[in-house]
Amino acid sequence: MSFNTFGHMFRVTTFGESHGPAIGCVVDGCPPHMALTEADIQPYLDRRRPGQSRFTTQRQEPDTVRILSGVFIDEASGRQVTTGTPIALLIDNVDQRSKDYSDIKDKYRPGHADYTYDIKYGLRDYRGGGRQSARETAMRVAAGAIARKVVPALNVRGALIQMGPHRIDRARWDWAEVEHNPFFCPDAEKAALFADYLDGVRKAGSSVGAVIEIVAEGVPPGLGAPIYGKLDGDLAAALMGINAVKGVEIGAGFHAAALCGEENADEMRMGNDGKPVFLSNNAGGILGGISTGQPVVARFAVKPTSSILTPRRTVDRYGNDSEIFTTGRHDPCVGIRAVPIGEAMVACVIADHYLRQRGQVGEPPAWPLLRR
Amino acid sequence: MSFNTFGHMFRVTTFGESHGPAIGCVVDGCPPHMALTEADIQPYLDRRRPGQSRFTTQRQEPDTVRILSGVFIDEASGRQVTTGTPIALLIDNVDQRSKDYSDIKDKYRPGHADYTYDIKYGLRDYRGGGRQSARETAMRVAAGAIARKVVPALNVRGALIQMGPHRIDRARWDWAEVEHNPFFCPDAEKAALFADYLDGVRKAGSSVGAVIEIVAEGVPPGLGAPIYGKLDGDLAAALMGINAVKGVEIGAGFHAAALCGEENADEMRMGNDGKPVFLSNNAGGILGGISTGQPVVARFAVKPTSSILTPRRTVDRYGNDSEIFTTGRHDPCVGIRAVPIGEAMVACVIADHYLRQRGQVGEPPAWPLLRR
Amino acid sequence: MSFNTFGHMFRVTTFGESHGPAIGCVVDGCPPHMALTEADIQPYLDRRRPGQSRFTTQRQEPDTVRILSGVFIDEASGRQVTTGTPIALLIDNVDQRSKDYSDIKDKYRPGHADYTYDIKYGLRDYRGGGRQSARETAMRVAAGAIARKVVPALNVRGALIQMGPHRIDRARWDWAEVEHNPFFCPDAEKAALFADYLDGVRKAGSSVGAVIEIVAEGVPPGLGAPIYGKLDGDLAAALMGINAVKGVEIGAGFHAAALCGEENADEMRMGNDGKPVFLSNNAGGILGGISTGQPVVARFAVKPTSSILTPRRTVDRYGNDSEIFTTGRHDPCVGIRAVPIGEAMVACVIADHYLRQRGQVGEPPAWPLLRR
Amino acid sequence: MSFNTFGHMFRVTTFGESHGPAIGCVVDGCPPHMALTEADIQPYLDRRRPGQSRFTTQRQEPDTVRILSGVFIDEASGRQVTTGTPIALLIDNVDQRSKDYSDIKDKYRPGHADYTYDIKYGLRDYRGGGRQSARETAMRVAAGAIARKVVPALNVRGALIQMGPHRIDRARWDWAEVEHNPFFCPDAEKAALFADYLDGVRKAGSSVGAVIEIVAEGVPPGLGAPIYGKLDGDLAAALMGINAVKGVEIGAGFHAAALCGEENADEMRMGNDGKPVFLSNNAGGILGGISTGQPVVARFAVKPTSSILTPRRTVDRYGNDSEIFTTGRHDPCVGIRAVPIGEAMVACVIADHYLRQRGQVGEPPAWPLLRR
Repeated sequence: MSFNTFGHMFRVTTFGESHGPAIGCVVDGCPPHMALTEADIQPYLDRRRPGQSRFTTQRQEPDTVRILSGVFIDEASGRQVTTGTPIALLIDNVDQRSKDYSDIKDKYRPGHADYTYDIKYGLRDYRGGGRQSARETAMRVAAGAIARKVVPALNVRGALIQMGPHRIDRARWDWAEVEHNPFFCPDAEKAALFADYLDGVRKAGSSVGAVIEIVAEGVPPGLGAPIYGKLDGDLAAALMGINAVKGVEIGAGFHAAALCGEENADEMRMGNDGKPVFLSNNAGGILGGISTGQPVVARFAVKPTSSILTPRRTVDRYGNDSEIFTTGRHDPCVGIRAVPIGEAMVACVIADHYLRQRGQVGEPPAWPLLRR
Repeated sequence: MSFNTFGHMFRVTTFGESHGPAIGCVVDGCPPHMALTEADIQPYLDRRRPGQSRFTTQRQEPDTVRILSGVFIDEASGRQVTTGTPIALLIDNVDQRSKDYSDIKDKYRPGHADYTYDIKYGLRDYRGGGRQSARETAMRVAAGAIARKVVPALNVRGALIQMGPHRIDRARWDWAEVEHNPFFCPDAEKAALFADYLDGVRKAGSSVGAVIEIVAEGVPPGLGAPIYGKLDGDLAAALMGINAVKGVEIGAGFHAAALCGEENADEMRMGNDGKPVFLSNNAGGILGGISTGQPVVARFAVKPTSSILTPRRTVDRYGNDSEIFTTGRHDPCVGIRAVPIGEAMVACVIADHYLRQRGQVGEPPAWPLLRR
Repeated sequence: MSFNTFGHMFRVTTFGESHGPAIGCVVDGCPPHMALTEADIQPYLDRRRPGQSRFTTQRQEPDTVRILSGVFIDEASGRQVTTGTPIALLIDNVDQRSKDYSDIKDKYRPGHADYTYDIKYGLRDYRGGGRQSARETAMRVAAGAIARKVVPALNVRGALIQMGPHRIDRARWDWAEVEHNPFFCPDAEKAALFADYLDGVRKAGSSVGAVIEIVAEGVPPGLGAPIYGKLDGDLAAALMGINAVKGVEIGAGFHAAALCGEENADEMRMGNDGKPVFLSNNAGGILGGISTGQPVVARFAVKPTSSILTPRRTVDRYGNDSEIFTTGRHDPCVGIRAVPIGEAMVACVIADHYLRQRGQVGEPPAWPLLRR
Repeated sequence: MSFNTFGHMFRVTTFGESHGPAIGCVVDGCPPHMALTEADIQPYLDRRRPGQSRFTTQRQEPDTVRILSGVFIDEASGRQVTTGTPIALLIDNVDQRSKDYSDIKDKYRPGHADYTYDIKYGLRDYRGGGRQSARETAMRVAAGAIARKVVPALNVRGALIQMGPHRIDRARWDWAEVEHNPFFCPDAEKAALFADYLDGVRKAGSSVGAVIEIVAEGVPPGLGAPIYGKLDGDLAAALMGINAVKGVEIGAGFHAAALCGEENADEMRMGNDGKPVFLSNNAGGILGGISTGQPVVARFAVKPTSSILTPRRTVDRYGNDSEIFTTGRHDPCVGIRAVPIGEAMVACVIADHYLRQRGQVGEPPAWPLLRR
């Protein structure tokens, strides 16, 4: 990972501030001959888009993506496909509401990166957070839509499993439910509770955190690498790198610390199709940094939105004590919109490792590895 | 991060298997003129070394490190210093106990990476785990010892704060205590409990997980980068990349999900020295991926050792159902020795970002940023 | 260097095809607080722009660049400055003359990359060469304009010193002359000869190669690195990576092979300002991969334009023998427009190494290095 | 390329000084299941080894390489093969003749990197040149031996084609002759002349430059990438990065500047095997940065050895004018031993691009690309 690029073979570079003319990204290293139009990307952006329910910010960001490069019509099929050259995506910024920033431009909003940007660079784009705005994540979602097409049979889905102190009941997990409530919640009962709870938070001008779980199915075994190219290491960086994320775990995660060895290690048996199966998935689909072929399961914690109505103590650029509170349009729970972002990051990491594995090892070894 | 290299400016490449002739690493990008001899590195290796109490494996690994390159005598000071060229470190493997591997070489140990290595590469070095052995982490500790010298005033310390279900009492946290018990535990009372508890685990041939906390003081503000070069993103990759780690969190971590915005965001005031201070540290010293100047606080969860005496179901390379149990010398709680490893990884990440920041921005901006 | 990115600290990623909606680039790692507007970039693009004399292609490419991100108004100075975040530049493609490509889309133009793209990717964007179009180099020139501002006192200039078999007379070298003829030629006499010569080549529907020399003054000593981060190694990659370049040399270059040791090695004396001076510059400002402080001198050879009116034998995508000739608008000597491109690449490489050196070493050592 | 690492998928990191305890390298990203023992590497090191004729330095460097990691016995074949994990190679330094460096340690040898190291780092290892010693290139040769095995059917050979002002006659080129004279010269007649000529140079205490040509056969078409991942760009960096190299060219190289378009562009016809053939190879096997399937042809110029008996003017670290001449054991023409080094660098670059291409594109498209 570089400053604004992630991935090695499947590389994504993003740019843009929330209040500049546009945001965009360049996806490099994508295999040629993959069918790709804006219609493959837009639905994922639409899932992430704010203003779709009363539970997300009311900013209007149509987020209409354009492909600027890297595609061409394949004569044989008549379809628009990737060419193997860099795919640039652009979204024009349209809802740059004219606003008076005089109150916040010299003050550091607690929980935001205002202070750290300033102390790092000596200046910052204060309009809407500039580069620290979650708006940048739209490009991750767009890149993720391309990444999903790189790995055959890959299916990456996400769900919000905890909001504030309230966790879902995993026994009621229903993937179909995720698209039927504004929280990407797989537990219909809890989704109803979340609605009430978050209404209260929102009306109080407060905010709340969340936990998101991402499950990637169809991940071939053998992706990742033993030491510093670990699949879980790259997932951790990718998910921790989402705005407001403070924790990441794989499989049993922090709970593994409380387990004994007999409980934790996933046993194996031969499956009916002649391939090994695991009897549990505490590993979250990754052992020694390499995918097992089981679903890859990652979770991450999102802190509560820092922009709240309650006045908070802070300092300003002149070195004075001050106070600040935020009146703008904000998500009471940024964790909700983190669901499609988390999916996208996981898809990008898996696509990258898929290409790296194909590069280093080529065709995977045939199972079983030995024959009598 | 590449397959066996991590870092950008401060780059560490490791090599070697547990039962080959040696393990080693190359530290590239280190600034010149830093005093460095083996005596700066060996104490950290000794902290990690097994066989120092009945709670770690009884393997004898003297782990005597040699510097092969990258240092020279500075005429002016008479000291041995870094030259700016790559520093290679080597540890010869000595305790390669002759052993019969016939029982495990064709079977996959549950919880180990045997299966994933094999399905990835089509073969593996089964002696002592080969490259998946935790022995590789000795080189991380060695590299970390060098990293500590890169950043002036950096102080990175770690502690074991949970073993199995037992957590320390943070009110009793005493850094001095960490070096006085075999668990790197900052709570003397809990250390005594851990001793009893782990004796039981060990005698039962079982194992248990742990949670480790790393605190880095003296981290200058401004390290990290907004998007994919986030300090917390790189810390997450570095810590998740340690053997057996299943979760990483920064500051309030997963607990942040349950907080409301008023509780979570750290307020600021002007300090007595004319610089801003934070009134709490839920951020763990990092906002928007950039260090705040507060202590950087990271925690990670280590799963229980997978090598246990209880027979476990598995399969073999021929595609047969089988059983396996481990009789060798193993740590009942690998989390203990993960403490110095975690410290080293945090030190390496901070050193890398220190050099990157100096490269991009040069001298940091003077505080306060504006003057009337 | 990655597929479409170059540089380590100062990183440039480009995208776009000649006949897509736009071309662009992302410059990442740029220091903050550098004054930057489109007016700093446009003049360099204008120098490279085709259609400015009868000796370059008559395509009209206004090449108006827009800055999409990475800049903001600095309150103290009132100037627009870089923020340290990625700077995206975009040029809309406007002269996409509707054209019948049926004759060339299935045939491989000799000397072009048509065949190699096709055999690599299985398809290619044949409109104007797609990604292989020299149009991409506009973004290099744009990035180079930014790079020039990174290194204080850096002055990078280029000149065409050979066209076909005709070389300039170095005794007549006059930098001022370079901007006064359509060839960037520093020898006024030869520029007149070039005009006649190239008129003949153009009217014959033929083309011709060239040699360009780039001189960078104000390069601080100490940039580069001993082994694989050599300044000349990176310059060689950067210049060889320009379209149609077939050779690169530094200082005495290939001529050094014919010299004896006494002639080649540049002797040193103490200068009047108390700093060492070199008595010659066969090294081209680089010894052991590291800048000496003398001007960095690089030359590169550009092959003749492959698009010519003479019919040439080729094959098509169906595996048939065929013939092809090119009727479009083409430069009879692409080497001319390679001058500003070569300057830009050299500026980018030096900026990158400047930041890398600042990162690893910080403040350079004071001269003299020892005192009695 | 990083400071001491080159390659992306096939990555080589080297370390060590000429007078330290050892030199070594780590080869990362190598595919598994390649047969590999020291016997595959040693012959290439022996070709490069000094002291084999009166025309190279009389230093005795047995250069016995040891493989420290990354290999294991494959049960099925009984052979030692690569495992896919990093391969570390080590050569102990043995001929560190005790020597008085007092005359050179404070003076800068003209043509050497003494001054640039010092002004960069503020110190340097003056014993035998330290890191700037050509001794480091032994590890490139060793890595190249591994790289040769990565690409099926790859055959990389090199030859010295010019010594001082004397060029070979290409009509007499005989690859078999290359191994039969101490110059790697493919022209037996010129080899005899070179012997006389170099004897004279040697006895005069002088030195001379050379030009080397590397030819790689068996390079699959499609390796490389359009823009900054050009095969020729990476070759240029790799060859320019060899000690004392001042120029690199591909195919027709600088001569291409003097050609017209009709002469330069290689025409194509369908070959007897149903695949396209080129009727010439001015491109040197690379078009648009991508291999054509023809032999890849690269040349590079090596400057004369800087260590000569003639006294030269220089300065010292105290800022005084001074004089220096070199009495040690030195090659009168370092270009000779550059032949195996150039071969190795070319092999490494091709191996790297082979794996990158397999990663991004997978199986190459079938020829012909279209069928009626």
